[in-house]
Amino acid sequence: MIETPSLVDQYCHGVLRTELGLGTFEAQLTPTEGPPAPGTTLFDTQTGFAVRRWCPPLLGLEPHCPPASYLARRRELGVVEAGRRLLRGSGITAYLVDTGLPGDLTGPTELGVAGDADAHEIVRLEQLAEQVADTSGTVECFLANLAESVHAAAAHAVAFTSVAGVRHGLALAPEPPGPGEVRGAAGRWLGARRVGEALSDPVLLRHLLWIAVASGRPLQLHAGLAAPGPRTDPVLLIDFVRATAGLGTDLVLLHGYPYHRHAAHLAGVFPHVYADCGAALVRTGARAATVLAELLELAPFGKILFSSGARGLPELHVVGAQLFREALGRVLGTWVAEGAWSLDDAQRVAGLIASGNAGRVYSLD
Amino acid sequence: MIETPSLVDQYCHGVLRTELGLGTFEAQLTPTEGPPAPGTTLFDTQTGFAVRRWCPPLLGLEPHCPPASYLARRRELGVVEAGRRLLRGSGITAYLVDTGLPGDLTGPTELGVAGDADAHEIVRLEQLAEQVADTSGTVECFLANLAESVHAAAAHAVAFTSVAGVRHGLALAPEPPGPGEVRGAAGRWLGARRVGEALSDPVLLRHLLWIAVASGRPLQLHAGLAAPGPRTDPVLLIDFVRATAGLGTDLVLLHGYPYHRHAAHLAGVFPHVYADCGAALVRTGARAATVLAELLELAPFGKILFSSGARGLPELHVVGAQLFREALGRVLGTWVAEGAWSLDDAQRVAGLIASGNAGRVYSLD
Amino acid sequence: MIETPSLVDQYCHGVLRTELGLGTFEAQLTPTEGPPAPGTTLFDTQTGFAVRRWCPPLLGLEPHCPPASYLARRRELGVVEAGRRLLRGSGITAYLVDTGLPGDLTGPTELGVAGDADAHEIVRLEQLAEQVADTSGTVECFLANLAESVHAAAAHAVAFTSVAGVRHGLALAPEPPGPGEVRGAAGRWLGARRVGEALSDPVLLRHLLWIAVASGRPLQLHAGLAAPGPRTDPVLLIDFVRATAGLGTDLVLLHGYPYHRHAAHLAGVFPHVYADCGAALVRTGARAATVLAELLELAPFGKILFSSGARGLPELHVVGAQLFREALGRVLGTWVAEGAWSLDDAQRVAGLIASGNAGRVYSLD
Repeated sequence: MIETPSLVDQYCHGVLRTELGLGTFEAQLTPTEGPPAPGTTLFDTQTGFAVRRWCPPLLGLEPHCPPASYLARRRELGVVEAGRRLLRGSGITAYLVDTGLPGDLTGPTELGVAGDADAHEIVRLEQLAEQVADTSGTVECFLANLAESVHAAAAHAVAFTSVAGVRHGLALAPEPPGPGEVRGAAGRWLGARRVGEALSDPVLLRHLLWIAVASGRPLQLHAGLAAPGPRTDPVLLIDFVRATAGLGTDLVLLHGYPYHRHAAHLAGVFPHVYADCGAALVRTGARAATVLAELLELAPFGKILFSSGARGLPELHVVGAQLFREALGRVLGTWVAEGAWSLDDAQRVAGLIASGNAGRVYSLD
Repeated sequence: MIETPSLVDQYCHGVLRTELGLGTFEAQLTPTEGPPAPGTTLFDTQTGFAVRRWCPPLLGLEPHCPPASYLARRRELGVVEAGRRLLRGSGITAYLVDTGLPGDLTGPTELGVAGDADAHEIVRLEQLAEQVADTSGTVECFLANLAESVHAAAAHAVAFTSVAGVRHGLALAPEPPGPGEVRGAAGRWLGARRVGEALSDPVLLRHLLWIAVASGRPLQLHAGLAAPGPRTDPVLLIDFVRATAGLGTDLVLLHGYPYHRHAAHLAGVFPHVYADCGAALVRTGARAATVLAELLELAPFGKILFSSGARGLPELHVVGAQLFREALGRVLGTWVAEGAWSLDDAQRVAGLIASGNAGRVYSLD
Repeated sequence: MIETPSLVDQYCHGVLRTELGLGTFEAQLTPTEGPPAPGTTLFDTQTGFAVRRWCPPLLGLEPHCPPASYLARRRELGVVEAGRRLLRGSGITAYLVDTGLPGDLTGPTELGVAGDADAHEIVRLEQLAEQVADTSGTVECFLANLAESVHAAAAHAVAFTSVAGVRHGLALAPEPPGPGEVRGAAGRWLGARRVGEALSDPVLLRHLLWIAVASGRPLQLHAGLAAPGPRTDPVLLIDFVRATAGLGTDLVLLHGYPYHRHAAHLAGVFPHVYADCGAALVRTGARAATVLAELLELAPFGKILFSSGARGLPELHVVGAQLFREALGRVLGTWVAEGAWSLDDAQRVAGLIASGNAGRVYSLD
């Protein structure tokens, strides 16, 4: 009943270029710290079951077929052709791709071509800073290059993204650090650092966030599912949210689950805050409709953005899109059937969340 | 099937006396820090959709009609007549009104007359203290007047309410501050304060809470939806709850969402703690049945109190009452249909939450 | 449709040996700090309603009969015969019994005989330490006896359990305390302590946890419902979870509600972490299916364990088992009906959660 012909995936990654076996595929299904416990498999998760539901038919198999049969068919087609069929079967019409992850992943252009869709780049701030650090000799040089790199990235990227919440926690001091503080932190970090080492200094993380805010590009902040722990509750951002209000830069709270109601609350109170409904649906599978409905409690309907949060496997783009479409249709359809919403409103809101809001926030064509 | 003939709104405010246009009406729908984001409207929220569902029929229009048509009809009737029709259509039989907000709002008596219902006053502690401060010359005078004012208010008000959680956070030191500490804090506050300035000193907030506890009147504490942020989780009250156990004063946790399960947990463990199910339903609209059901998980059925939390717009009283009635009927009706509850029990519990518990806690008639 | 012929209750206590009246029975229904509020009864809770739904038929009465009729029938049969009928009616085939509570409760063997089921002991670390303290003269003697007692318990118990989260909070320093630190804390505790006094020193609590981890037996940690307050959120364990990863000892997070989604998140990310779905169902009654479904969002299906969490009343073992079976059948059955899961998968997962996972984690038969 509720239709979403256009689907903008406002946060995802590319897909792996290598052929995968049962074990290497399983390891990509969901982020873990270590291999599955003895006697268990990551296929026995909501994500695993959702992949088995939605993906086999796109490769000519029955839904819920055993993982080994699916992987055999996937290898038979080859990673490129399987990826093409999966991405084109997802119904996603535009990808916003975070390019800041290591590994042999396709970039935005390659992903767009494979999926016959538009593609845009999201620049990850911490990776940018690490690259700049790898090639800058002095503190002054590092800081100048950093500012220039962010400025240059803002010219072609549709958004910035930050994992400051994962690296340090979201309860960062809200104000921009002073120049002396930044130089001191940069000196200590550059002095002690080996090439390739990750950035987790809170002063530099804050400095990065504020350079990004100054660029005017939407800033996506990883929260919730990004890492288990009390530090990733998006509500901890409250002071940063207050400090950035009225500056003209939008904040997008990524995959806030299990704190998605907190993300929705912030999106409801602050004009420049938006909430992502992505990875949470992929991770909760058969429960996607409920999780989406919880986000729809406090978040204004103009403030919610679809994404898949997919990484590595095109199967996750498929599952993200299919679960979203089904969940949205079920939730809004039920409210229409109960008389709580009109069908016109439901159809309009579906379009906003599927693509309209993203088009407006990221100025897509 | 489940009926609630009597409905005590245990926490609300008065309604605006001025005529409202589309923009001024929209601004009252839900509390925000700033105007709607460009390209969005606060009508596109659960509250906005709930108002469009329930209110137009009370003014002779179709449900879900466009906001502009609704506002035109509202102005045609005039703010007084529209208010009368809405309030009388809500089915609320008694209002407990927090009179501590600024703005041209009707008081309890005027609200009761308009709605053909009983009405009682709730006194807001911080506003009382600010009024006393405006008229007290010395610290000793301020503290004596404060004690006397709370004492006098306890004689006519049915409850006190406090926004200490919004002003400072709910993790206040649990014990009453000592007399020297209070005098010191009062001296600092009175010395630095301009007339009308809000009270947020934690020592004075605690002092106020303990004067109110001593009065024996139920004490309503704002939590959850009152302000986004980690400081309003009602579970932070745990030490204050322990410190006030057995003193004979009831604590009512207001609009705990998104921490309503925490509020329900406290209500389940501590005899003197009660949980409000009000503003959360108005804010979550089509999701009200689920939110109410979540509160019904741990809170004993004799510890849950209906409210609308409405402020400014009589539409919010209507929506609070209609969503509550529908949600309660659906949740309890489903449990009866599944055999989990008996119909007699369901009917009895509905009466408790709708009005019975409030009647007992606030000693109404 | 979904069947669970075998049910391992992975965490419960024994039942009271004394006859109970209406008031003494009511007091056992749910843990509270104080008697019911005036005008309320603990029978008016989800647990009370669930007991009245499921237990009267096992004693030959109608579901939902009045509490007084039920208690009269219970006394007529006698506590032993009523307990036999109830436990055997629960469908539980094995009990894992925490023996560390005071009171006249049946032990594992007696519970197993009454219920015609297997029974195993879980040893409570804090009670073990308190018993050792009662009989040890010096610090050196206490510490040596403690290590020996834990070692001896590991030979016959299937698991250890700790209430460190209730006594001190789960945000304990993650690393094992050093020997000098432990000796100092033991000296202070033994010096100040009266016989029978509870252990709440954070250094000794950590020392106990690490002795238990070294034993290799699964370690059950009380969280969530164990006590209201911000200190029992299982996500606070994140650093302890990281510190114990890869050591070969499993951690089982008990009754995480209202933080069960956080427990599931940890179980999803860390191979050695498991999530209990027990007491939460008993406490939320008619809402059990939703609470179980929330746990099934992030927790891999090989990481979830059934329990009743029952204590004192065999009625609670019955309610734990019946609510679980019904909730599991409804949740998984719905997903099969929607096409999200295959029936084979659903049946297999049901078996894992009901008994298979517990059999593997606790090496039962």
